Amino acid sequence: MEVFLALEKNFYFSRMLASFEEHIDKHFPFLRQARLLIAISGGIDSVVLARLCDQSGMKIALAHCNFHLRGADSDDDEEFVRKLGTILNAPVYTQHFDTRKYAAEKGMSIQLAARELRYAWFGRLLGEGKGAYLLTAHHADDSLETFLINLSRGTGIEGLSGIPAVNGKIIRPLLPFSRETLKGYLLEQQWTWREDVSNSDTKYLRNKIRHQMVPELKSLSPDFLKQFGRTQQHLAECGLIVENYIEGLRKDLFRQEGDRRIVAVDKLEQLHPQETCLYYLFREFSFPVAEIQKLLRAMSGKKITSEKFIMVRDREHLLIEPIAQEETGASYFFITDDIREIGYPVRLLFSEGDNDVINPGNGVTIDKDKLNYPLKLRKWEKGDYFYPLGMTNRKKLSKFFKDEKVPVLDKNNTWLLCSGDAIVWVIGYRLDNRFKVTAETVNTLKISIHSEAKNEN
Amino acid sequence: MEVFLALEKNFYFSRMLASFEEHIDKHFPFLRQARLLIAISGGIDSVVLARLCDQSGMKIALAHCNFHLRGADSDDDEEFVRKLGTILNAPVYTQHFDTRKYAAEKGMSIQLAARELRYAWFGRLLGEGKGAYLLTAHHADDSLETFLINLSRGTGIEGLSGIPAVNGKIIRPLLPFSRETLKGYLLEQQWTWREDVSNSDTKYLRNKIRHQMVPELKSLSPDFLKQFGRTQQHLAECGLIVENYIEGLRKDLFRQEGDRRIVAVDKLEQLHPQETCLYYLFREFSFPVAEIQKLLRAMSGKKITSEKFIMVRDREHLLIEPIAQEETGASYFFITDDIREIGYPVRLLFSEGDNDVINPGNGVTIDKDKLNYPLKLRKWEKGDYFYPLGMTNRKKLSKFFKDEKVPVLDKNNTWLLCSGDAIVWVIGYRLDNRFKVTAETVNTLKISIHSEAKNEN
Repeated sequence: MEVFLALEKNFYFSRMLASFEEHIDKHFPFLRQARLLIAISGGIDSVVLARLCDQSGMKIALAHCNFHLRGADSDDDEEFVRKLGTILNAPVYTQHFDTRKYAAEKGMSIQLAARELRYAWFGRLLGEGKGAYLLTAHHADDSLETFLINLSRGTGIEGLSGIPAVNGKIIRPLLPFSRETLKGYLLEQQWTWREDVSNSDTKYLRNKIRHQMVPELKSLSPDFLKQFGRTQQHLAECGLIVENYIEGLRKDLFRQEGDRRIVAVDKLEQLHPQETCLYYLFREFSFPVAEIQKLLRAMSGKKITSEKFIMVRDREHLLIEPIAQEETGASYFFITDDIREIGYPVRLLFSEGDNDVINPGNGVTIDKDKLNYPLKLRKWEKGDYFYPLGMTNRKKLSKFFKDEKVPVLDKNNTWLLCSGDAIVWVIGYRLDNRFKVTAETVNTLKISIHSEAKNEN
Repeated sequence: MEVFLALEKNFYFSRMLASFEEHIDKHFPFLRQARLLIAISGGIDSVVLARLCDQSGMKIALAHCNFHLRGADSDDDEEFVRKLGTILNAPVYTQHFDTRKYAAEKGMSIQLAARELRYAWFGRLLGEGKGAYLLTAHHADDSLETFLINLSRGTGIEGLSGIPAVNGKIIRPLLPFSRETLKGYLLEQQWTWREDVSNSDTKYLRNKIRHQMVPELKSLSPDFLKQFGRTQQHLAECGLIVENYIEGLRKDLFRQEGDRRIVAVDKLEQLHPQETCLYYLFREFSFPVAEIQKLLRAMSGKKITSEKFIMVRDREHLLIEPIAQEETGASYFFITDDIREIGYPVRLLFSEGDNDVINPGNGVTIDKDKLNYPLKLRKWEKGDYFYPLGMTNRKKLSKFFKDEKVPVLDKNNTWLLCSGDAIVWVIGYRLDNRFKVTAETVNTLKISIHSEAKNEN
């Protein structure tokens, strides 16, 4: 993962081309010989990238996605890119997507859907030999915006280390340059571009960050982007050192027998700092660190599961195995932020930004921002309580089941969806009042029970 | 270094005391038995800290600094703290400082001077047995503010890892709590406090961050401070892992003979990631990483110095020794951001925020924010050029010396102050135009030649 420093602030726009070529020759000399696919929207950043590559004598082709999200504007963007291809004498590839439909089907946000569609298509183009590398126009301001978004969501060192300059066949050669520099050069060269109207809309998180927060941050120091670039490079390198260190630990600690990984509890107990070491050591299995820590103190036989793995406390060891779906006897199941569907122990579908009111027996719509991931599915335990929807006082779950006249067998087959220690939903019965959608809710999450019987597809 | 998580956002102020006591008992149980010195200004944060400790039954004394920076207001603060001492039946220690004079003498900012005076006095109080620990009222918002300040200045992982909860005898038990929580509890308890008028003045960096940036950041996510606390804890732990890793490297790489440290160049060349490894390995000597990297590729005999050390390339090794002041033959001298005075090879004094116009032969006043630290002192080299003050074109240094009719001997004895590759000041002759003070200058730095002959003290 490489991050490059932002250039001097007294940057003369007319020196942009020379700086760009220096940057290419120093870090990506192989781009000079190859056919390059430029991911192009028609906006300032990607137009400058395509034109700089052309001015540098590189062989380019343009790849444009039409997401059909802004009506005629989307088609005008496509037309603009086609004309640019003619001017630059470069092949143009375009692809049309029904982004809204795809997002709805996958239960994901429009932005995420567009991203998934875009990179899948770029991958196909590379696979078909339309280019040896894909170039994107991410720049220094994008890195700062991503940093702030990740900061607001809670992230580790990876999320703060910047957008990688090289990621497989994807290269980002504009990362050292600021948005201001790119725009200045474009204006100086009198190039045209397409304004993306959604960009000036501050209702989206990224636009709020771009138009309100980033200018404030830059005003803190005359060299802010440059200093920030250094910080990101340092963090990225610290991240590599941590990976090296953990790799050494992993070799010492884990023993493999077939599909099973075995690790001694006493060695995990001695790790320092424990939380971060456990996080990296077990990251591939998607167990929450706090639950691993509980397992370190648990009795033999205690189990937890993630989407694909089960971990069992077995005397002085932890055993980790891939789940054989039918036979898991685990009592806890974890649901991470990116999961859209689970099949066991209850079949649940998750869709974000979906406000449909649904039958409380079949599903709930909740305030997503109140959740702490990963969510946990478990059976009820003695002493459990929650705040039934519409009530401000807590109620013991045993009392709730009694009042609702739930048969013992059903009660013992009922799953609870939990966020941290709090019950979010007594599945099939009642939502917790603390997680309901209110006037202040920004992001919603719909969770529906999807039994085979009810599935009409 | 410990960082604790911010509490739930649906925090009831009346639960503050219980949460505070839980936090004390979990992380600092030893505070229960000791006499505690509370660093108290009279503002909300320190008043809440003192009163919480009192409500929890801890034995406290109050330590108040009167910096005499706000006239009668400063004395009223002191009076307020004395009365609070009577109410809480706690001893009150106060100290008066002539902060402005101290700052002027030391050539440092008022804030830095106040900090230095404050902690020196606290140290004396602890030394005299007035308390076993010093408690300060830093809270979650302070951590976020410090993070942003460090981000704007360029920092490594340490600068992003938060204010330490324990630092020797100094304990900060309010770090998990937000400013809002502390203020809410204070209002609920109907306690009085002293408003610090300088706090609402946004001309200072920290106040700009506090009143403009932090509210924006918090609005990005309903749980921002909590997520941010997690991120900081993770970064602090990654920092520890990096330290562990580097400690292992250091043992492998460095050999000591008397005062001399010896390290093989080929082993340094193999380090990955090189920049961060070099940074931590050589941090104690204050050599800039870029210069160490140049020395890795330099010929035998090449030398660099920092304030206290000299590093020499000696065939396949680097040798590092403490400087014997008189005998250094190094060609480069580095000046870090915190140095206020150097004695060799030229005697220079540095004072920030000082706008006195001075004789260009004896000193210069420059735009500090245009400097990249560490600065470098070196002799002139063939091909050197700069932008003499008042000129927009560059001029070769050889031509400059010729035009100024500088004798050969003086020319060869002239030192250049450099920032990165740029010459800032041909010492004793001319400032570079790029570094002059302009209407946009925010921070100034005065550098004066302080020859023994001119020194009248």
